[in-house]
Amino acid sequence: MRIDLRSDTVTRPTPAMLEAMFNAEVGDDVLGDDPTVLALEEKAARLFGMEAALFCPSGTMTNQLAIRTHTRPGDDVICDQLSHVYLYEGGGIAVNALASVSLAQGERGKLTPELVREHIQPDDLHKPITRLVCLENTVNKGGGCYYTIPEIAAIRTVCDEHGLLLHLDGARLFNALIETGDSPAAYGPLFDSISICLSKGLGCPVGSLLLGKTDFIKQARRFRKLMGGGWRQAGYLAAAGIYALDHHVNRLKLDHARARRIGQLLLDLPEIEAVFPVDTNIVIFRLSPNILAADYVALLAEKGILAVTFGKHLVRFVTHLDFTDEQLEQLALKIKEGVITQS
Amino acid sequence: MRIDLRSDTVTRPTPAMLEAMFNAEVGDDVLGDDPTVLALEEKAARLFGMEAALFCPSGTMTNQLAIRTHTRPGDDVICDQLSHVYLYEGGGIAVNALASVSLAQGERGKLTPELVREHIQPDDLHKPITRLVCLENTVNKGGGCYYTIPEIAAIRTVCDEHGLLLHLDGARLFNALIETGDSPAAYGPLFDSISICLSKGLGCPVGSLLLGKTDFIKQARRFRKLMGGGWRQAGYLAAAGIYALDHHVNRLKLDHARARRIGQLLLDLPEIEAVFPVDTNIVIFRLSPNILAADYVALLAEKGILAVTFGKHLVRFVTHLDFTDEQLEQLALKIKEGVITQS
Amino acid sequence: MRIDLRSDTVTRPTPAMLEAMFNAEVGDDVLGDDPTVLALEEKAARLFGMEAALFCPSGTMTNQLAIRTHTRPGDDVICDQLSHVYLYEGGGIAVNALASVSLAQGERGKLTPELVREHIQPDDLHKPITRLVCLENTVNKGGGCYYTIPEIAAIRTVCDEHGLLLHLDGARLFNALIETGDSPAAYGPLFDSISICLSKGLGCPVGSLLLGKTDFIKQARRFRKLMGGGWRQAGYLAAAGIYALDHHVNRLKLDHARARRIGQLLLDLPEIEAVFPVDTNIVIFRLSPNILAADYVALLAEKGILAVTFGKHLVRFVTHLDFTDEQLEQLALKIKEGVITQS
Amino acid sequence: MRIDLRSDTVTRPTPAMLEAMFNAEVGDDVLGDDPTVLALEEKAARLFGMEAALFCPSGTMTNQLAIRTHTRPGDDVICDQLSHVYLYEGGGIAVNALASVSLAQGERGKLTPELVREHIQPDDLHKPITRLVCLENTVNKGGGCYYTIPEIAAIRTVCDEHGLLLHLDGARLFNALIETGDSPAAYGPLFDSISICLSKGLGCPVGSLLLGKTDFIKQARRFRKLMGGGWRQAGYLAAAGIYALDHHVNRLKLDHARARRIGQLLLDLPEIEAVFPVDTNIVIFRLSPNILAADYVALLAEKGILAVTFGKHLVRFVTHLDFTDEQLEQLALKIKEGVITQS
Repeated sequence: MRIDLRSDTVTRPTPAMLEAMFNAEVGDDVLGDDPTVLALEEKAARLFGMEAALFCPSGTMTNQLAIRTHTRPGDDVICDQLSHVYLYEGGGIAVNALASVSLAQGERGKLTPELVREHIQPDDLHKPITRLVCLENTVNKGGGCYYTIPEIAAIRTVCDEHGLLLHLDGARLFNALIETGDSPAAYGPLFDSISICLSKGLGCPVGSLLLGKTDFIKQARRFRKLMGGGWRQAGYLAAAGIYALDHHVNRLKLDHARARRIGQLLLDLPEIEAVFPVDTNIVIFRLSPNILAADYVALLAEKGILAVTFGKHLVRFVTHLDFTDEQLEQLALKIKEGVITQS
Repeated sequence: MRIDLRSDTVTRPTPAMLEAMFNAEVGDDVLGDDPTVLALEEKAARLFGMEAALFCPSGTMTNQLAIRTHTRPGDDVICDQLSHVYLYEGGGIAVNALASVSLAQGERGKLTPELVREHIQPDDLHKPITRLVCLENTVNKGGGCYYTIPEIAAIRTVCDEHGLLLHLDGARLFNALIETGDSPAAYGPLFDSISICLSKGLGCPVGSLLLGKTDFIKQARRFRKLMGGGWRQAGYLAAAGIYALDHHVNRLKLDHARARRIGQLLLDLPEIEAVFPVDTNIVIFRLSPNILAADYVALLAEKGILAVTFGKHLVRFVTHLDFTDEQLEQLALKIKEGVITQS
Repeated sequence: MRIDLRSDTVTRPTPAMLEAMFNAEVGDDVLGDDPTVLALEEKAARLFGMEAALFCPSGTMTNQLAIRTHTRPGDDVICDQLSHVYLYEGGGIAVNALASVSLAQGERGKLTPELVREHIQPDDLHKPITRLVCLENTVNKGGGCYYTIPEIAAIRTVCDEHGLLLHLDGARLFNALIETGDSPAAYGPLFDSISICLSKGLGCPVGSLLLGKTDFIKQARRFRKLMGGGWRQAGYLAAAGIYALDHHVNRLKLDHARARRIGQLLLDLPEIEAVFPVDTNIVIFRLSPNILAADYVALLAEKGILAVTFGKHLVRFVTHLDFTDEQLEQLALKIKEGVITQS
Repeated sequence: MRIDLRSDTVTRPTPAMLEAMFNAEVGDDVLGDDPTVLALEEKAARLFGMEAALFCPSGTMTNQLAIRTHTRPGDDVICDQLSHVYLYEGGGIAVNALASVSLAQGERGKLTPELVREHIQPDDLHKPITRLVCLENTVNKGGGCYYTIPEIAAIRTVCDEHGLLLHLDGARLFNALIETGDSPAAYGPLFDSISICLSKGLGCPVGSLLLGKTDFIKQARRFRKLMGGGWRQAGYLAAAGIYALDHHVNRLKLDHARARRIGQLLLDLPEIEAVFPVDTNIVIFRLSPNILAADYVALLAEKGILAVTFGKHLVRFVTHLDFTDEQLEQLALKIKEGVITQS
């Protein structure tokens, strides 16, 4: 049995989700008449207390749309040095928005009001103009840690004081919500835009949503078109999104419990120097300095366990809808057997 | 009954196509392991005699990927003033590729070797550098007209003489192939890249393919990621593409016959000044100067006939998979009744 | 004696201008304390009835600054197909502003209210957003023709009706003013920005000015910095500009008279098929179809007459400060002798 | 007496330099026939053992030209977090080159082979492509520290191993050369491009040079045009450059000696917590945490001493051609009097 913990993007739809998809009523979304896409966009906007939404093929697209719509060339974006928008979107901030970055060094990738304040550019023509702050919640590279509402509200206050916009990369926002118990509706008023991903923990095959004000979404929709994100009968994928929002949110608790269990199991392996705190569905661990993550991931693969490197000596596991208790027990056995026979 | 002739993008999958989709084996395409996507990409590349392919959410994305991958900022693209890449991709040539355009005025949007030659920039630092020529086949704005292989070969020769790359926007290439009887395999050697669309005449819900050399596709895949086109379990959509390539190519003849019939019927309407030659599945007609296309399209809509404006006094119909003989007869009746009661 | 009619950019400062430069008080313009630069900027702004000005190394920089400051990526610029901003600025509209162009085909490069209206994009996400109209006065490629104030005012009205900005490429604006007798102060209220060049007819070695509202100039100053236009003791060049505005405007009449004389002389040459109307200091003529402009320019050079090609069969002469009556008489003699001995 | 230590850009030409400028023979540099510009470009290229050079209005332009010519959109540039190209060029890396940055944290802004190696991106489509490494010598923000040839050679080796290009921002390269005794000719073979500034320590009013291979300079010249850096009779400024290369290099020793003296004097001020090592002509000092640099610079200005803030509690002095021994003694007196009467 192959245990795929590379990412929560690897999930396949459940039979019920698949049923919902192929019974979807569809239309031409570029012409604005796919009823299922419209229903998903409205459902998501209402859920988060925002005016409008836009359904897109990926979380990179929704993040990049937000950044380019909020900024002009020559603007500056404050984000953490561990943020996905900076690290894993192909240099898109520069390519799509022609914006510079000011990189904070937060704890596990989380910004604070102080960090934001320190990274605001002075009014100086040698400098780009600070326009946008990007948060990520949960923080992938930070091991799935999350923000509380008061933490976000304090950052919002700094943004308001300095006329800055605030975007949330909520690729795994539902993982945060399920842990904190916060309501999605509490998020809308705190952000100028929110990106949520349906094809990670929520288990959809494809799709992310960008949320924001009506005018902002109208502008983003234009940029979506020229980026090639205008898709036609996207309702099949939107139907999965509606199903997931209705049925796959609460079950994220299971993913978190399983991730925590993995975190504990890993402590037994002598080659592992440290395991990051496991807050949601991500487990990151650091190997001894003499072991390369790439080698270790290869060893794991030989045992049927798929993971990804997350730094020279860091490895990441992500739990998800297709990772079951049965697989967890198998994983536990394999860990007890040891990964490295002799080191 | 609503007769939707706005575009061939409005089609919905047939039950058999939906069945193929429903049963697709999928994986994570960003991680490179969606077997159905891989199968579609390989099938399409082989069909056209090209090395590699990339499955994307839209024809705008495949065209824009080609243009940005082939060029550098400050380059110049030769295309017809009627071309889709210039007219209908949101200004993407400038935004995505930072490239300028030199616009030829071909007959019905078709370039010729002479037009290409005339639009090549001299070696002068006041000028951008001509790098790429874009053809469209069939030409949407030209009323669905098409190129013959010798016409393309002659343009290829000019490109070779001047070190220019040649891209084909083949959104409706299969409509051309079915009319000319040309083999797809004859196309690969003539172009540096080809974009084909699966969600127009071929009837898929979503998806286009970019074809080219292995290195080119590798670079385009990187740009696809930062444009947000990295989708996960895209195999559901790829399965529709495989089905369409197997089952929906030959039937395009029906669409063409129906379009020609419509073209003839329209000649009876006194308010129509001219009908463009109907070569494939597109019918464009010009109204009398005193009638605005927007008004006429509204009148048609009241009668249950959906069309789009294609200029101040131009209207376009497009036939497709979901436009049946029964609808054609209904349309014929409505046309005979007249659209404008008194003019 | 070499007679250089390639461009009015080839002039060298007069002794008096050089003296003014030599005695200039200078400072660090990037730090904002070059008094001569400040004086020139204020003088020019006041002259045209605009709020502020920015001194730059070239007219291409001032035009490109205007276009990028007025627009956002994905916007569309309406200009004539003969305009300098489109033809001779290295594709800068796309590279610097990521903006598309809609090219009008005016008479001799001049826009009209109707042409502007026809080229405004509909509100459609397939299209870029029309934001800016660019006029050129005089029109270089149009043979130095010019606009009247009522012509401009009518275009301004269309811009106002559609919320469009209006920029003037006034590289040779003083040539227009001296012919029409219009006051520079009449121009400020008609445009959102004006670029004037000091190193063409006005005879300065280097420099152009961008004029506009205070906020606009502040933004343009930022873009100037990142384009590399922040120069230090630029006051030496600004001093030439002040001198030229005081002493070199009225004398443009001489250049125009000499250009008209050349235009008449050229009518005697059998190989010349047509001479464009000579309105200011530019003379464009068309050769017989069997003579290439490049060959003809080479023949002229052998006789000590320097000109530039302006199309396959078009040649351009430009009169200027360093082209004297003595040179004119020499030119007349050479023309009478004939350029082509046998054709 | 005003003592201006804000930057070495504030210098005014000496009478002899001014004489050289206004006796210069000039032409139209855009047309390629300004003899003094050509002479300067050839002189500089030969001096550094490089093939060609390009004379530009600023060091920001030469750096940005290098970066955009070496890279494509979506590439990644490795530089230190203190580098001028990242900090003080208006976000130009993103705006001009659409390139991302990977920021090293070197000691006083200096890269090492290890730092370069660590910041090279893996071959992963989530990541931009590492293409270029930028060094700065001397490092402005590092307090004027410099590289030795072996240090640079070791970085070049890493670049060669990974197919990376290497650019030098040599805004103050002559300050480094005069300290190390290295020959300019030793630099050419180590870099793909070098930018040197004439309007800093060398005392010219305006101008920088970009050096590189012939093809690279040809491409950069095209980009210069569309950035607005095509200037006409630039020979007046180039003449200053020739003069400076002949007469102002060796005297940089004086600036360094004076800077060191200032560094020692500052140690007596109780409010100064630390003075950075003074290696060339830059003196940076850190104030006590309770004193803001902006306030301190204002206090200095009241005493006729001009400086700039270089961080919240950091102040910078720069010595230069117009800072004399007499001014140094005056400065010494003022420092002994104390800047802050009561703290």
